[in-house]
Amino acid sequence: MRLIRFFFEGQTSWGMVEEDIVVGTLGMGGPRTLASYRVADVTLLAPAEPTKIVCVGRNYREHVREMGHDFGGDLPSEPGLFLKGPNALADPGAEIPYPSWTSSLHYEGELAAVVGRRISQVSQAEALAYVLGYTCALDITARDKQRSDLQWFRAKSSDAFCPLGPWIETELSPGDLALQTRVNGAVRQSSRTSRMIFDLPAVISYVSQFMTLEPGDVILTGTPEGVGELHPGDQVEVEVEGVGVLRTSIA
Amino acid sequence: MRLIRFFFEGQTSWGMVEEDIVVGTLGMGGPRTLASYRVADVTLLAPAEPTKIVCVGRNYREHVREMGHDFGGDLPSEPGLFLKGPNALADPGAEIPYPSWTSSLHYEGELAAVVGRRISQVSQAEALAYVLGYTCALDITARDKQRSDLQWFRAKSSDAFCPLGPWIETELSPGDLALQTRVNGAVRQSSRTSRMIFDLPAVISYVSQFMTLEPGDVILTGTPEGVGELHPGDQVEVEVEGVGVLRTSIA
Repeated sequence: MRLIRFFFEGQTSWGMVEEDIVVGTLGMGGPRTLASYRVADVTLLAPAEPTKIVCVGRNYREHVREMGHDFGGDLPSEPGLFLKGPNALADPGAEIPYPSWTSSLHYEGELAAVVGRRISQVSQAEALAYVLGYTCALDITARDKQRSDLQWFRAKSSDAFCPLGPWIETELSPGDLALQTRVNGAVRQSSRTSRMIFDLPAVISYVSQFMTLEPGDVILTGTPEGVGELHPGDQVEVEVEGVGVLRTSIA
Repeated sequence: MRLIRFFFEGQTSWGMVEEDIVVGTLGMGGPRTLASYRVADVTLLAPAEPTKIVCVGRNYREHVREMGHDFGGDLPSEPGLFLKGPNALADPGAEIPYPSWTSSLHYEGELAAVVGRRISQVSQAEALAYVLGYTCALDITARDKQRSDLQWFRAKSSDAFCPLGPWIETELSPGDLALQTRVNGAVRQSSRTSRMIFDLPAVISYVSQFMTLEPGDVILTGTPEGVGELHPGDQVEVEVEGVGVLRTSIA
């Protein structure tokens, strides 16, 4: 099933997509009526309303190497995590401003999972049963400030630094999907989710030991090698096999 | 004005306190009726429903020194920030579990501000006009994991690592308030908010240049010197002059 969050005639709603038709409800706060729309007529929104966005850093070994942080002979025993706030979300098709305070804005294409049920202290074996589905994320990063600031805050969680979408695909197994990032049509990142150091069940189980995840929360699973600079006017595409393509441009 | 969030007869609501009486509404999702209650009869809840909790690290010079991170001769030009998720909130009077994965749980008493109106790109002169009011926060920190993890994530944003309350005081000027943390009655931290390196208007203005703050968002302004270990059974009090006392215990 493909789930979208959309805007149509002044209202925001959730819907299911079948071919070129959306079936969804409108009338937030008042009576809600089930209705159908043409996909082409609605505006897609980021398909999640999270209380937090949990992100994994350094989760693909070749990316760790290109950042100059190899783990040496041993891989880490626990994932490295950080947060983005909901303010960071941006809709499919969004034009992202290039902030004046950075001179090194990077793209990082990622597989994202959207939580479907409250998660607390689950095992790896149970973890995926709590996921609503999967989508594409662009983890925009101010690389210079990531290096110089005390924590990855401004560098990762500024407004619109987390384009998400275009929709949630619920019927998908996340363990071995092709993941590609293209800038102006040129392939810059190309890997498979099977190359993660910590796979999604491991990440969810780990986080859930100390942090309760709520329905709608988003998990970004890390980016593979090939990260690089964005420039004003760039067109960025993140494609996850079985989901689709998230398109973003830099203003 | 003193604002509380409270639980009474199965419902959660907001109210205003005058002496020992709360005036508030109940009936979330249905008709709401204004009613009055005795403060002693209701259960106080953390007085904020944030989309994010923005925290300032290293904002009192003597605390920076005690952590072994002095800035040298020059103070930093920008505040060091990090996030806690809403999962970290805990109510006044909460009993906080001592997690099994840390052996160094620290208290950090702080002044907290609750945002009243959406804030984007405000000047320092305007900043405080967007604040609803002030309360007390206990920034619980797993010091060992803060040092060893990639980012301050588990160490700062685990469930219940942000007790907040007991209420919001709206008629208060935050610039020079006494701030004290007591453990089992003994004073451990005692300072004034005037000793912050970056005062609240500076922090809000800085954050608002790249991160939109929403009504209900919480800003933790940093902790003074005197941080130290918590142990099972400890009673912790954070007192902010003009607000009151936030009480928390360690399970």
